[in-house]
Amino acid sequence: MPTPIEYADASPQVRAVYDDIKTSRNVPDVNNFWKYLAHDPATLKRTWESIKEIMAPGALNPLTKEMIYLAVSVTNGCAYCIASHGAAARKAGMSEAMFGELMAVTGMANETNRLANGYRVPIDAAFQK
Amino acid sequence: MPTPIEYADASPQVRAVYDDIKTSRNVPDVNNFWKYLAHDPATLKRTWESIKEIMAPGALNPLTKEMIYLAVSVTNGCAYCIASHGAAARKAGMSEAMFGELMAVTGMANETNRLANGYRVPIDAAFQK
Amino acid sequence: MPTPIEYADASPQVRAVYDDIKTSRNVPDVNNFWKYLAHDPATLKRTWESIKEIMAPGALNPLTKEMIYLAVSVTNGCAYCIASHGAAARKAGMSEAMFGELMAVTGMANETNRLANGYRVPIDAAFQK
Amino acid sequence: MPTPIEYADASPQVRAVYDDIKTSRNVPDVNNFWKYLAHDPATLKRTWESIKEIMAPGALNPLTKEMIYLAVSVTNGCAYCIASHGAAARKAGMSEAMFGELMAVTGMANETNRLANGYRVPIDAAFQK
Amino acid sequence: MPTPIEYADASPQVRAVYDDIKTSRNVPDVNNFWKYLAHDPATLKRTWESIKEIMAPGALNPLTKEMIYLAVSVTNGCAYCIASHGAAARKAGMSEAMFGELMAVTGMANETNRLANGYRVPIDAAFQK
Amino acid sequence: MPTPIEYADASPQVRAVYDDIKTSRNVPDVNNFWKYLAHDPATLKRTWESIKEIMAPGALNPLTKEMIYLAVSVTNGCAYCIASHGAAARKAGMSEAMFGELMAVTGMANETNRLANGYRVPIDAAFQK
Repeated sequence: MPTPIEYADASPQVRAVYDDIKTSRNVPDVNNFWKYLAHDPATLKRTWESIKEIMAPGALNPLTKEMIYLAVSVTNGCAYCIASHGAAARKAGMSEAMFGELMAVTGMANETNRLANGYRVPIDAAFQK
Repeated sequence: MPTPIEYADASPQVRAVYDDIKTSRNVPDVNNFWKYLAHDPATLKRTWESIKEIMAPGALNPLTKEMIYLAVSVTNGCAYCIASHGAAARKAGMSEAMFGELMAVTGMANETNRLANGYRVPIDAAFQK
Repeated sequence: MPTPIEYADASPQVRAVYDDIKTSRNVPDVNNFWKYLAHDPATLKRTWESIKEIMAPGALNPLTKEMIYLAVSVTNGCAYCIASHGAAARKAGMSEAMFGELMAVTGMANETNRLANGYRVPIDAAFQK
Repeated sequence: MPTPIEYADASPQVRAVYDDIKTSRNVPDVNNFWKYLAHDPATLKRTWESIKEIMAPGALNPLTKEMIYLAVSVTNGCAYCIASHGAAARKAGMSEAMFGELMAVTGMANETNRLANGYRVPIDAAFQK
Repeated sequence: MPTPIEYADASPQVRAVYDDIKTSRNVPDVNNFWKYLAHDPATLKRTWESIKEIMAPGALNPLTKEMIYLAVSVTNGCAYCIASHGAAARKAGMSEAMFGELMAVTGMANETNRLANGYRVPIDAAFQK
Repeated sequence: MPTPIEYADASPQVRAVYDDIKTSRNVPDVNNFWKYLAHDPATLKRTWESIKEIMAPGALNPLTKEMIYLAVSVTNGCAYCIASHGAAARKAGMSEAMFGELMAVTGMANETNRLANGYRVPIDAAFQK
């Protein structure tokens, strides 16, 4: 079973990623996710750089992005991701009222996705344009 | 195979739901989703009333809610829902730049959900509080 | 892209499975599912024999089994399986009222599965016994 | 991380739902699921009322409905839901033989859903009617 | 909640399967998976015989098969299966470098599956042949 | 609804990615997937560079990687991805016998993932090391 790679035990390549995460997020240490990915330095680096690019403020703000991340993680049932992105969303400003509405929408979407499947609903012509 | 129930052929109970959808959304007709659910008037009514309540403006605005709905539908691969909620999100103000970022976040979340699973990453103590 | 293997073109091993399906189900021809699986005769045989054993009347009747099969297929969004097991369930006696309730339960289960995930609900001690 | 809201600490609106659950199900306390949903009283109320309507006896009996709920929860891998609906199904009369057959059907449906996907099996004309 | 059935407490039918697993895999005891499936001897036997047939060396070697098994289990988020098939893949020769690449491919496939869904990409004519 | 962006209509940034795909894969044109992603040049570039890195020969050969990609796509039910990665795997050397075994393993893994969920099988101590 894999174990986390701590900073003190990390290679220079891994440390460079850890340092960038800590600086970018202004945190004293990286989360377990990164300490496990560190077993594959190429994946660690690629994943971090992709996330840094994707989660940066753009047409959507970081809070909206974190809530979308959480909705996907809840849909997939990834316990680690629900915990970590729930924390990240709260840190980015998600109130409990916002969390409640996010869960309500996520739950309902999962329900109506199956109703649409089960009733074999054809796509409306208006949505094909 | 089920067929859509048009307004002219609908029972008074189903027409009442169709009327409420048309009024609430200011549209001339309801989507196929509702015309198929109409085969079960209790589910039609309950689903519409739930969605009306959930998608109303609250702590989250309607655009954010539609984007979350789309992220879930994309994750589940529901073609009908991707088409209909993509249209709804655009109607609520989603620009193409916002759509692009929404897809990027949704894709990345689906990737890291599996990396967390595969590396069996334990939840950080900080996320258990 | 694979193509269906018709009876006339099938090997003796494949024909034997087709014959058993036709006899067991009292149908003049097998569904496309089997005609595609026939590209791998070992999987064709194993899958048919497993399904024949699993779907036989037992503690659950065939109608209940077909409805469970349909609920799973709807949850996974398998269009072929929704079509074929919807037909099989109707043939086994599923009324439209039963179908409506089946969809309602399937939809709601998909919703509350995500609410339980998102709220990180711990399992009650009573359910651990 | 959310915590359960006990009856003694609940608002009148939440208590009203708890009371209805306890009366309807003839139980001394509500499950954790409801105690966590109580953080969002609107979702608590809507979810309970939907489930009460959906799970009531109708064209399908409560046992069949609980088994369908369990099949979906197993397919989605929701540990909480598998525990709680497994208990509910047993309370509604599911024997161990019925559970075994339910799991066999659920497992096989998940297998053949993927075989149909992978072989790209087209829907038979007979299933399009 | 089910409990494992140990060899000493097993029926002759269950013992026969346990014996075949132990002999085929050259292990002193069977895993928990089999000890729980043993509650349904028909499913125990059918599942073991299917797996024995499927996982045998053929056009694909056992290591490749175990890695495919692991990729599916990671995609579905089955914690038990990730643990057991991770161990089986390592026993069959999966190095840590191979595991890292397997996770990278699995993660990326989960990402691009959703990008293809979200952008509603039509299948190229070349892939329809 | 999005439309594909052809080379002639593409920006220099998009053309540079298309050129790299065509050169790397020795193909005259890029697949639809890339022509749709091109609506978001940053995602196009990041996704292509990630895939190029991940799918390169390493501890696993390209054929094994394509088969893993296909197993995940089949599990998720992504029709586009099943078509495109099925073609890619065949181009990389997957025989029909290999495809059959790949499908058999993928199907069985999806089945036993649910059996492990449903029986609530605890992880063996041996897999926790």
